[in-house]
Amino acid sequence: MNIGALGPAGSYSQKAVDEWSKSRHVTSLEIVYYQDIQDVFESVQDRTVDAGIIPIENSIEGSIGITLDQLLESSVVIVGEVVVPIQHCLLSKGTLDDIRIILSHPQALAQCRQFLKSNFPNTEIRTTGSTSHAAKLSNEFAEMAAIASRESADKYGLEILITDIQDKKNNHTRFIVISSPDLSEEIKNITADLITPDGPDYRTSIIVYIEKDSPGALYTILGEFASRDINLTRIESRPSKKGLGDYVFYIDLNGSINEKDIKEAIDGVAMKVKNIKVLGSYPIHHYPEQTDN
Amino acid sequence: MNIGALGPAGSYSQKAVDEWSKSRHVTSLEIVYYQDIQDVFESVQDRTVDAGIIPIENSIEGSIGITLDQLLESSVVIVGEVVVPIQHCLLSKGTLDDIRIILSHPQALAQCRQFLKSNFPNTEIRTTGSTSHAAKLSNEFAEMAAIASRESADKYGLEILITDIQDKKNNHTRFIVISSPDLSEEIKNITADLITPDGPDYRTSIIVYIEKDSPGALYTILGEFASRDINLTRIESRPSKKGLGDYVFYIDLNGSINEKDIKEAIDGVAMKVKNIKVLGSYPIHHYPEQTDN
Repeated sequence: MNIGALGPAGSYSQKAVDEWSKSRHVTSLEIVYYQDIQDVFESVQDRTVDAGIIPIENSIEGSIGITLDQLLESSVVIVGEVVVPIQHCLLSKGTLDDIRIILSHPQALAQCRQFLKSNFPNTEIRTTGSTSHAAKLSNEFAEMAAIASRESADKYGLEILITDIQDKKNNHTRFIVISSPDLSEEIKNITADLITPDGPDYRTSIIVYIEKDSPGALYTILGEFASRDINLTRIESRPSKKGLGDYVFYIDLNGSINEKDIKEAIDGVAMKVKNIKVLGSYPIHHYPEQTDN
Repeated sequence: MNIGALGPAGSYSQKAVDEWSKSRHVTSLEIVYYQDIQDVFESVQDRTVDAGIIPIENSIEGSIGITLDQLLESSVVIVGEVVVPIQHCLLSKGTLDDIRIILSHPQALAQCRQFLKSNFPNTEIRTTGSTSHAAKLSNEFAEMAAIASRESADKYGLEILITDIQDKKNNHTRFIVISSPDLSEEIKNITADLITPDGPDYRTSIIVYIEKDSPGALYTILGEFASRDINLTRIESRPSKKGLGDYVFYIDLNGSINEKDIKEAIDGVAMKVKNIKVLGSYPIHHYPEQTDN
């Protein structure tokens, strides 16, 4: 099978693909690299690729807006997730004194905001479509530095000038695996050998649109889950883009849509909101936590 | 009085200050410009300026992460808000064919994501601390273009090449007015002549930190408001930065902390969460909605 991801090689998305395919014992997986997240969605949707892997949230900087928007607008479903530890490095062909321009993806720049403010308050900042693209571009001039992974230093012939420059040592990004709805069962079957006697824990992701000025609507919705002891692991609002004060809510909950309680809760929510979209149920990725200090 | 804002002159923050001072009939207001949002917070906190005005959310791209983080970390309070219509233009000294580099603030770039993807897929993008700073820099080279306000074209000697380039025509940014706690009453008194016989509508902003793995905790909190018919106008999660899945919630509600119901609800919430921070109660800015099409 092939899978779309943010490229070029050396990106954290590549790490996510490697981690996912390793844990799923997927062999002969071909990665197709794209310039931006929207392109990955489009290629998954038109089945140019079997699946895609894209970042959805980071533990320092929060949600990736374009991913949330695309989940609402496109017809893809979520079939898996994988969490990758993020350790940004400052990479360059030159020395610290040479640096005039720092390049990286906007999310990585935001994750290193304090580092940049303290150490490079007046240095020009340029954004790129991915951290690995920043590393690739930095190879051209000694005055350029990239914020990217350790691996992309090797890949693009750069020196690691400083390691672990993100504002919190404990930094993780959660990626989701997406596919078109008609391929989702096939891709989920790839994970079948993962299922232990107890079965994997599942997470279900939904989007609900509550009309503006519906006081208490969110409370009523959450009640459908609370009354069934269903644990919500995430609730995130995003502008509906119809105007200020009008939001769409992204909710993650523990359990699979195949469980009776979850199904009933979601049916209950559907009765109460203008729109609901079930993005899918998929195995939770349990990963080792790091500790700050 | 003086007020800190994102500069240089010509920024949307300047528009926000103008709008706020006009509606509050504040005369002789001096604007002190800063390079970034964190600097505005610091200057308000150490009382270098009497107040600050900073963007908090946009109707296309959502929350401004650094503002939310600073509201949690600093000791400032919110004393007012103002909503500004945002109409981005593409500005340059050169022509469309000359453009090799586009500069703007990351939020403005995100608000024009589709425009950029369709029209400038391979053009280099550089981020700046503000839209007006982008306009100022673009004055140097004909190959540079800025995404900024119409006003900054005049200010920095640029031509308006394309108007209204944000992805949705209806685009607003909500700014908040912040001050140090000991100055907040004084600044609120400035708005006293605004108070009509019915009194202005107030909004109250709070931050709550719910410990991870407290199923139903958010539901219980929202219940304190729902049971008192208090309308929540916004609920936004932000990483606690302790690790994935651990969030801080920013909640806006209709009403003032001086009202008995609101006070009781907030006291009720305080009993149920690990941490609560009341950011302040302030008059709601009612503004004319635009319509798309």
